Amino acid sequence: MSTTGKSPIDFWFDFSSPYGYLLSEKIDELAARYGRQVRRHPILLGIVFKATGSAPLTLQNAAKATYSLLDFARSARFMGLPYRHPDKFPIATQNAARAYYWLEGQDAALATAFAQSAYRALFVDNIDISAPEAVLTIAANIGVDRGQLEAALQSPEIKERLKNEVDNALKLGVFGSPHVIIDGEAFFGADRLPQIEHWLKTGGF
Amino acid sequence: MSTTGKSPIDFWFDFSSPYGYLLSEKIDELAARYGRQVRRHPILLGIVFKATGSAPLTLQNAAKATYSLLDFARSARFMGLPYRHPDKFPIATQNAARAYYWLEGQDAALATAFAQSAYRALFVDNIDISAPEAVLTIAANIGVDRGQLEAALQSPEIKERLKNEVDNALKLGVFGSPHVIIDGEAFFGADRLPQIEHWLKTGGF
Repeated sequence: MSTTGKSPIDFWFDFSSPYGYLLSEKIDELAARYGRQVRRHPILLGIVFKATGSAPLTLQNAAKATYSLLDFARSARFMGLPYRHPDKFPIATQNAARAYYWLEGQDAALATAFAQSAYRALFVDNIDISAPEAVLTIAANIGVDRGQLEAALQSPEIKERLKNEVDNALKLGVFGSPHVIIDGEAFFGADRLPQIEHWLKTGGF
Repeated sequence: MSTTGKSPIDFWFDFSSPYGYLLSEKIDELAARYGRQVRRHPILLGIVFKATGSAPLTLQNAAKATYSLLDFARSARFMGLPYRHPDKFPIATQNAARAYYWLEGQDAALATAFAQSAYRALFVDNIDISAPEAVLTIAANIGVDRGQLEAALQSPEIKERLKNEVDNALKLGVFGSPHVIIDGEAFFGADRLPQIEHWLKTGGF
């Protein structure tokens, strides 16, 4: 909980979600401006899509896939953010998600820094972050002990944590990425940032 | 074509699309501000979804359906527009679309007024606009000859026009509603209005 007494902003995302990356780059500064903290919940969209009968945008029909690739890059330009669509996409992200949850238990600020680094590695530097080695390198670059994290990625507790987070997301009605809940109100998509800001400013509209 | 030499904004929508209604309420004023005209293309999402393997938002998974209902109304409030989700939804819209195309051949301004009236009837006044009678009443209320329009709704030329518009939309990559193309650039969704405005202002970004 924030020291201001306001509840945190809950933010669900998959590390392979372009719009999740765009929201991630904006949400912390926005939350801070309104006295809120951000509580990140990396999840696995593969499981969410299986449960909800959906599919990644680029693997749906050809017209939607073509448009989505255009819109990822244009939305990034519109938001003033760098974007380079990864050569390998979508990718498996359980290692990045597990690393996040382990780090969160150690140091919340470091976990946030890791989430941002992992997203930028994938969507700016075209680095495939699916393998444990890639995740370990990103974490080591921000000061995380590589050996400790490597062990944590295999720990039953961390695997269970990720599983529980996905289950809980589904229970809360999360059906894609990014999905934000503020004081019980759901917002889906990076394009809902203006509505999120208006909500934070007005206390609901 | 606009008298300014700038190409018109092409706007595809289904009369049963909530986000199409929201965009319809904003696009004409926005276009005029940047010296553009709006060329409306009502289409039938049922055919588009069949061709692209998609489905209405409220008939997909339960979580997405619940969120969509919340987001239709909240997006309307955010845009300063009235919204009342129709008791019957989605509905068949071939009669409204055919009326539009016939009116467009008579008087472009009247056709625009009809499109706005039909959308408001459905999404503000909860009127089921699927039947020919409902469409005829909406048109008569803005001065259209009821008998002439009634005959036009059955004319092979108007039926063929709608069929051709849907076929052409699919060829152009339209996969949902609202879909806008400006100078070859596609924008999907009422939430792309800020990007549309930035595009019109800057000539592309």
